[in-house]
Formats: sequence, structure tokens, C-alpha cells
Amino acid sequence: MRRLNLALGERSYPILIGGGLLTRADLILPYLRAPRVALVSNETVAPLYLKGHVEALEKVGIGATPIILPDGEAYKNWESLNLIYDSLLAERCDRSTTIVALGGGVIGDLAGFAAATYQRGVPFIQIPTTLLSQVDSSVGGKTGINHPRGKNMIGAFWQPKLVLADTDTLKTLPDRELSSGMAEVIKYGLIRDLPFLDWLEANMESLMARDGAALAYAIERSCANKAEVVAADEYETASEGGRALLNLGHTFGHAIETGLGYGQWLHGEAVAAGTMMAVDLSRRLGWLTAADRNRVSALLQRAGLPVKGADLGAARYLDLMSHDKKVVAGSLRLILLKSMGNAVTYADAPREEIIAAIESSSRG
Amino acid sequence: MRRLNLALGERSYPILIGGGLLTRADLILPYLRAPRVALVSNETVAPLYLKGHVEALEKVGIGATPIILPDGEAYKNWESLNLIYDSLLAERCDRSTTIVALGGGVIGDLAGFAAATYQRGVPFIQIPTTLLSQVDSSVGGKTGINHPRGKNMIGAFWQPKLVLADTDTLKTLPDRELSSGMAEVIKYGLIRDLPFLDWLEANMESLMARDGAALAYAIERSCANKAEVVAADEYETASEGGRALLNLGHTFGHAIETGLGYGQWLHGEAVAAGTMMAVDLSRRLGWLTAADRNRVSALLQRAGLPVKGADLGAARYLDLMSHDKKVVAGSLRLILLKSMGNAVTYADAPREEIIAAIESSSRG
Repeated sequence: MRRLNLALGERSYPILIGGGLLTRADLILPYLRAPRVALVSNETVAPLYLKGHVEALEKVGIGATPIILPDGEAYKNWESLNLIYDSLLAERCDRSTTIVALGGGVIGDLAGFAAATYQRGVPFIQIPTTLLSQVDSSVGGKTGINHPRGKNMIGAFWQPKLVLADTDTLKTLPDRELSSGMAEVIKYGLIRDLPFLDWLEANMESLMARDGAALAYAIERSCANKAEVVAADEYETASEGGRALLNLGHTFGHAIETGLGYGQWLHGEAVAAGTMMAVDLSRRLGWLTAADRNRVSALLQRAGLPVKGADLGAARYLDLMSHDKKVVAGSLRLILLKSMGNAVTYADAPREEIIAAIESSSRG
Repeated sequence: MRRLNLALGERSYPILIGGGLLTRADLILPYLRAPRVALVSNETVAPLYLKGHVEALEKVGIGATPIILPDGEAYKNWESLNLIYDSLLAERCDRSTTIVALGGGVIGDLAGFAAATYQRGVPFIQIPTTLLSQVDSSVGGKTGINHPRGKNMIGAFWQPKLVLADTDTLKTLPDRELSSGMAEVIKYGLIRDLPFLDWLEANMESLMARDGAALAYAIERSCANKAEVVAADEYETASEGGRALLNLGHTFGHAIETGLGYGQWLHGEAVAAGTMMAVDLSRRLGWLTAADRNRVSALLQRAGLPVKGADLGAARYLDLMSHDKKVVAGSLRLILLKSMGNAVTYADAPREEIIAAIESSSRG
């Protein structure tokens, strides 16, 4: 088992990574305020992992109330959140109840936001079961739901007490979801860890073949990068750099997700296409070479990811991007690469260059 | 103008109290991240105060987007919250926009929760226009909405950057609302400030006659008490005492509010009746005398408040109270008076004594 720490003062917490952790209730017990959890999962993950997990909890005297939601980004909304509230209230869960998220990013974001807001806040534990959530969304405390006008528009920062990433759950992950998670893994290499990017290029075949040791290393290295960034900028308030850099490709990508309706493209797929737009724009600004762009494109494709975005038209992209949370006082701030392994926040990209980058990296 | 400080480290903020503050945009300007506010108010308050406030803001270059909600506790729900989100998104408000609550406790709680959750949190300013909100709900960062199963069940701690209590707004306050606020003023005397209780007994006629100086003093003293309690226990996590003590009468009172449906009894009316239940229970436990109980009853009545709760039946009270947020691991914790001016958290009151206290202080 690998162990990392996210250093946030009194909100610090461990990230545990390894095989077979799902049934290790002894790892969870020290983090509970009372021996009672509400276990939020979905209709895909629950049949695979819920029973074994609940049995392990019950063996050490922890009572578990399962709350099973429909599966998919389309359900990351108020209705699902309200299903969680209803169950918590019906079961008379109080402030000593810990909410546990057992699932991917949607479940983590929903359960985390429920934890942030139920009775003004209850303890929370993340048990991510997808690569995407293990390397990204389960770490750092971002929670929330979507709004018809934009992704993650409603939410809160609410740190978990513990993140438990069981690499065994990746064995049942669909190929497309594995690829989607790999987009975020590659992102860490691009924005701040060039040696890791080299490692990924050398090991992408092993990763896609689900080699356990390779996956565990990639998850640990991804989480270590994320933990450093989050520790330095918990609430994404840094005016330069900081947490916003984790959003490489995300402003473009969110436009694809929102423009097509949630659930058409997986998050990582949209991020991969969005990353190519950011990389192409960086090249147009003279910061990257055509060879750099081709290198990123090749790696994303080896991870089974798209490198061209949906054909929404540049005007629609720009309109959707203007709703992005990184817009400050009306100015669109993009995450671009000053060089490979070195991301920056940039608010001065010429509009025509942004349009050209969108058009060169979208289908149509 | 009177000025207090709520000491919460980097989340500290001033509470300004006095006449004519509503048009003092210069007091607000230093607390804005960008010269733009979303002004949340209701259909009762907006016709009285919105125009003058917006004009004052515009004079110093602050753009204001008004968001007007229906008036009343019945509207402290998801639908109203969503109206705020919709307006913020339609107007493309970003993280630099400050949400301002102009109204009573319902508006403050709704606007505050919107601020806590819009784009994972934006700055917030409270401009309370009722006595209740000036002495209680605008200070301390509790925000939230009601759920059909319980009051304030969904919410967040989100501190404002500034509280601006304009005592002139109390001139237009209905008598019943003035009384409702007075229940919370009296509460501070009962739980931790016996000299203030004496002062209230000597000055209740002036207060009810809306003497400006008397009201300003009562508001300042109430806020000073609340600020001390909140500074010591921001998140209501103290196992003994702390912020929970501010809820004297509230567990019983919430049962009345929830049992009858929101909006039948005003909050302070329910708290007054609930306070009598808590006082009577304290007497039954041997902590107060019958004379103490009569003293509290007389003062509440001079403030125009009810001293007997709605006739729900003790069983229904207990059922509703079991949903209270102060329930920890199944145990009902009540705020009682160990002596006059000295509140405690108590989890061991015998059930039959609780029932007797409810029955002796309810109509029927």
C-alpha cells in the first residue's frame, strides 16, 4: 500500500493507494466520528463492490446505510442530491454520520457536496473506483453539481477525511473510462512533471494493458502532483498559477461537455480534445513547437483518447467558455503551456488565435 | 455608528450598526473584489429600500443586479435558491461578484447559501433589515435552506465580509416582527449576560416604542455577545457549551415551526414559547426557581411574545425534535439554564420531564 499526505493544516488527510483496500474496514474506522456511514454509490458500481464493502464494515461494527443513485454525468444534478438528503433525513443521520462516496467522479462530487451541506457539514470519505476519480476528482475537496447553464456551477470546497484508492477496482473499468482517466494522468506530466511525461511515454502500453504496478505508480505520482498543488492553493484563489493550472484543457473541454449535453463525451475525452486546443494555442503563441504538439497528440492517441473536439463551431465554444469559473471580472483566463511541463494562466491570448486553435483541433 | 469586530482570523469581519447606513456605499466599497454586486432582496423589502441603496451604489461606480424573491419562511427552499443561481448565471456573474443580502433572516440565509455554493463560493455581505436578522442571523455565517423534513437541514457555514445593520429600517418593521426579534435579544441575557437581562427589563417599553438609541444599544450588545460565542466556536463543534448555547429554546421552537408548516409562527415567536419550555424543564431539574420562570415569562410577554407553544402533543414534539441538528449519535441534547444568565448543553434530561415541560408550556 502506498501512502501520501495532503498537507492542509487541520484539514490534512491521507491518500492510500493499493490493491484490496475496499475490504480493509480497519483503514476507515479511525476516521469515523461515530460507527455509522451513509454509503453513496451508483447502479453500476454497487452490484460489483457494495456488498463486500458493507460486510467488511459490519464486521468491525460500522453500520452502513446504502444510497444508490443512477449512473452518469447526466445525474450530477439537484435531483440526485435531493435523493441523498432525503435518505439521510429518513434514516435520521446526524452530524456524526460520515458520508462515504463509493464510485467515480460523479458520485464523489455529489456525495461530497451532500456532505458539505447536510446539516451545514458532516465528515466525508472518498473511495474512488475509476482511474479518473483516483487520480483527480477524489483529491482536493472540490464537490458540486451541474447546472443546465454550466458544469460544476454549484458546489463547495469540502475536504475528505481520507481517500482510499483500491487499484483492484480498475480491473472492471470499461476501456473508454480507463482512457478518460489517462487524460488527467497525462495532464500532470504536461503542466508540471516532465520526467513523469517521459515515464508515461515509456509505459503507456503497460498502463493500457492494466499492469497493476504501472497503474499504482501512475496513480501515486498523479496524486502526489495534485496534493502539492492543492496544498499551496486550497481554494483556487492564487492569482497566478496555483490550482487553476490543473484545468489544462478543461475550459475548452467543458464547452464540449456542456455544448453536447452531459454524458455524450466522457470528461477525460473532452479534456483530451481541450488539451490539444490549449497546446495548439500555445504553439500559435510561440511557446511550443509543432513537434511538441505532435508529441502530445501521439501520447493522447496511444491512451485511446480523441485529439479533436466536437464540431460546435468556434462561436459556440467561445460563448460556452465565457461561463467558465476561471473568468474573472469578464476576462477569459486560459491555462496554456509556456513550455512542455510548465503551465501558466494567461488572459491575453488574441481572440483570433483562440478561434484558430479551436478550429484546428475540432472535427468538421 | 457603532462598530464591532467578529474575530475569526483571516475570516474576521466588522459589524456596523447605526442609522442611515443603507445609503453609505462608501462603507461597502472597500469590501468588494470587483465593483459588482448581486443584490438579493424580497418583495416586501425591495419597494422600501432597494432603489435608494442601488442609487447610492451606482454613484460610486458599483453595478448592482437585483434578484427579488417572494417574502416568507415558506420560500426558504431549493426553488428560491435556484432562482438566485439562474439570475447569477444569466447575468454571467463570476467569482469576483459579491452577493449582498438586503432583507431579513430568510433572505440572509438564502443569499448566504447561494454565496457559499455559487461557483464553489463568492464573497458575501449582509444588510439585515429586521431586528431578528440584525441581532442574530446576519452574524456568524450560518446559511441554508429548509427541507420538508426539517428547518435549516441543508446549508453551509459561510462568513460575510461585512454586516451593515441600519437601525432606520426598523421603523417600517411590523410589530409582530419587532417582537420576534426581541425573543433573540432576550436570549442573550438569559444564556450569558445577566446585566443585559436586567437592562432589558428596565428598558423594554422604550425598545417596543422603537426608541432609536435603546434599539441601537440592544443590537450592539446582542451582536457583541454573539460575536464572542461565534469567535470561540465557529463551526459549532464544541462538545460542551459553545455555539450550541445560542439555540436556547430553538429545539422546541423548531418543532413548532416544522410541525405547523413554515410561516405560521414567526421564528422568534416559536423561540419564545420554546424558551419557556426550556426554562420550565430547567426548573423541573431544580436549576431555576418558579420565580425565575415567571420573570422570563413576564419579560417575553412585555415584548409581545407568546409563552405557550402550539398544541401539537408531546409525542409529536419529541418526534420533530429528534431530527434536530444538535442530536449527536442518537442522543437529544437540549440547551437549558443552570441558572439565570448561564446556559448549558444537557443530554440527560429524563424523557418524562421533557414531556411535562412541553405540556405545561403548550396550549391545549
